[in-house]
Amino acid sequence: MKNIDVCLTPDLLHLHSIDNSIVIVTDIFRATSCMVTAFAYGIESILPVATVDECKDLQARGYIGAAERNAQKVEGFELDNSPFSYMDERLIGAKIAMTTTNGTLSITKAKSAAVKVLAGAFLNLNAIVKYLQTQPYDVLVLCAGWKGRPNLEDTLFAGAVVDALKDEYFVAEDSAILSMRTYQQAKDDMIGYLANSSHIRRLHRLGINKDISYCLQRDLYDVVPILRGNELVNM
Amino acid sequence: MKNIDVCLTPDLLHLHSIDNSIVIVTDIFRATSCMVTAFAYGIESILPVATVDECKDLQARGYIGAAERNAQKVEGFELDNSPFSYMDERLIGAKIAMTTTNGTLSITKAKSAAVKVLAGAFLNLNAIVKYLQTQPYDVLVLCAGWKGRPNLEDTLFAGAVVDALKDEYFVAEDSAILSMRTYQQAKDDMIGYLANSSHIRRLHRLGINKDISYCLQRDLYDVVPILRGNELVNM
Repeated sequence: MKNIDVCLTPDLLHLHSIDNSIVIVTDIFRATSCMVTAFAYGIESILPVATVDECKDLQARGYIGAAERNAQKVEGFELDNSPFSYMDERLIGAKIAMTTTNGTLSITKAKSAAVKVLAGAFLNLNAIVKYLQTQPYDVLVLCAGWKGRPNLEDTLFAGAVVDALKDEYFVAEDSAILSMRTYQQAKDDMIGYLANSSHIRRLHRLGINKDISYCLQRDLYDVVPILRGNELVNM
Repeated sequence: MKNIDVCLTPDLLHLHSIDNSIVIVTDIFRATSCMVTAFAYGIESILPVATVDECKDLQARGYIGAAERNAQKVEGFELDNSPFSYMDERLIGAKIAMTTTNGTLSITKAKSAAVKVLAGAFLNLNAIVKYLQTQPYDVLVLCAGWKGRPNLEDTLFAGAVVDALKDEYFVAEDSAILSMRTYQQAKDDMIGYLANSSHIRRLHRLGINKDISYCLQRDLYDVVPILRGNELVNM
């Protein structure tokens, strides 16, 4: 039987052996929700990079630059971290270079050891689940968290994946059980459940409530962003 | 307003600034439940040490040795990690040296920076809460976890502390919200909630079900173990 596990923050990834695992990186608010949206709207590839400087270099080489720090756009880049920015027909076929506070770092951390790295969000939850069911590998959902700390929204998504796969996979570890139970508790009113979360308060201050509602919608898109070499593409 | 926060494992303690905080270390199964029981039964002091070797040295200097690794007693020591071992009138007034897989390490990690370090368990939940209310400091509940990973039972205890103090303290961070909601979900049937947890399975294999039921009882003892210098004493 395949195993499914959850890592609540990239700062705990060293405790997980992932050489037989597909890693689903999730950063619900908002990096992986952006990525899923981008592929749904026809973007060709996304190159996740760790630093703003790398992103700038790639911009000079023809990439469209998307850089976010502390939930805000970095000056000098075309795209911010709102999924609505990616719904733009001028971006069809584009190659994007992206750096975010938490999400892209998690992808970088996972890529050296994992069998495959996917980007997951509520927007493509069912597409991810269906793909995993066809694969012979264990699964680790890696929550991007916030600056090393666990957060509620990524934990909820991890729990949604575990909940969907719990009958076919072995749920061995407490982080996976905790995430699943949290999702089961919250799933009928995720906005209510998240009302006091630290990131929701951060985003409210920035006035982007519509991003929050958007990112919590399930199964809008049938896309599976997967890392090929250093770039994410739609499978 | 004072802040209350939760650190789900000692591997994330570096993300928390604790120089204005009282840290409550918890290792429900079973180190801090043992400590609380020990003081309730008249033990004088507990010296937590990180290694089995240190524990052995102290034994040679007259301490009673308690050493546990992987949930089992290490050979050559008087006491194991069952709270029932500490209900022994021959131990009244005794000085104990203790090392455990997770709990004592967390105390060692917290002690350099925190204002005060306490040992908390369901057994002395209310005593801890009442003491914190008299203090001007922030609170961090530090879950010992299992070998660096979060676990359910320590998260539940952290949530119980947050739940009891939520009206008087600012609950800013998601780990604290997650713990509190988990406790609220589980509090009426904690044994049921923990039924599939990794550590419960580990303990079942060792045949110590009665320790589990015992450690989940709330407010049996009015003791507050506090670190003075290197030793825990009853306040």
